[in-house]
Amino acid sequence: MARKRAQEKKEWIRKAAISIIAREGFYNCTTDKIAEEAGVSVGTIYNYFNNKKEILSYIFKIECIKLDIFFSSLKKKDFSVPKIIKLLIDKYFKYTFRNQELARLLHDESNKSENEITREIYNYILSVREHLRELLDEGVEEGTVPRNYNPDIIINVITGAATVTAFCGFIQEENIEYIYNNGSDELFNIFLNGIFLDPEEN
Amino acid sequence: MARKRAQEKKEWIRKAAISIIAREGFYNCTTDKIAEEAGVSVGTIYNYFNNKKEILSYIFKIECIKLDIFFSSLKKKDFSVPKIIKLLIDKYFKYTFRNQELARLLHDESNKSENEITREIYNYILSVREHLRELLDEGVEEGTVPRNYNPDIIINVITGAATVTAFCGFIQEENIEYIYNNGSDELFNIFLNGIFLDPEEN
Repeated sequence: MARKRAQEKKEWIRKAAISIIAREGFYNCTTDKIAEEAGVSVGTIYNYFNNKKEILSYIFKIECIKLDIFFSSLKKKDFSVPKIIKLLIDKYFKYTFRNQELARLLHDESNKSENEITREIYNYILSVREHLRELLDEGVEEGTVPRNYNPDIIINVITGAATVTAFCGFIQEENIEYIYNNGSDELFNIFLNGIFLDPEEN
Repeated sequence: MARKRAQEKKEWIRKAAISIIAREGFYNCTTDKIAEEAGVSVGTIYNYFNNKKEILSYIFKIECIKLDIFFSSLKKKDFSVPKIIKLLIDKYFKYTFRNQELARLLHDESNKSENEITREIYNYILSVREHLRELLDEGVEEGTVPRNYNPDIIINVITGAATVTAFCGFIQEENIEYIYNNGSDELFNIFLNGIFLDPEEN
């Protein structure tokens, strides 16, 4: 019972930290503000974390675990790799716009310069890339991804296109509904057919 | 003569600020550190700028002007739109890796949450998108870009793929040479042919 209660408090702290960091940025975030938002004392926070950087790392650690669970569940589906990637983009936009504070935090903190990125943030970036890479390898096996492509470059195209599309939703909020409803179809169409008609054919 | 000298000093301050912000982040950057790096007194900085935020805005303003000049020069070439976009990606990688401090700063500062983005940074993001949009409109006219595509989504794919590829170079430096030499060819190949072979055909 005590352990369950402790886990609950840690969860309150994690959620409060997500709100404060997303709203005010990591630099302006303090353990005082997190404690107030979580409805616990500052002392309670220090029972779980040594400083705000550890809370940020913990937020990324939890997202890493969620990623692993999500990708494992995808593997059980009997879909082609392109179909799984379409599903993935769709889930990404839905998760992003339903959890906007968290999504902004993940975007902002994982795009910082390398001297500000903690090991857990780096692991999160690598984890996304590793999971996609496994999928692309399967795609090569099943014949849906060309063998001669560089998987790193494909991963850059997929993650770059998806994150910039979500980011555009954040800085121009009138776009969120459109992206939520059509973003994954439109991106997938480009991933399937390319952007350009072959100029040689014109 | 005095005016030329004043412009020179402003340039020293701009370049010094780029180094400090890229190395230490905007928060840790102070006008004292910029003055030391530029070899001028802090008082001199305040002749040109009221605070470090104004220096950051000035850095983005200069990049906006460079963008305009660069896109104007591209328009004079008699190339198809896909060929211009390939050239653009190539120039982007070369500019990025030859000006790594500046490129890191542009990446880090333009990916911050919207309450930290100044008007000049926002203008810079919009300016890149506006220039690309003009090009894509021309592509539709010349028949190299499909008419039914959403130009915003195409812009997200192009800018997302290019910036994530450059960012991967920054966090894994062993990749820089590869991206410098092959990045634009590989990205362009995906933009032309798509990522996936049609699963329906398999």
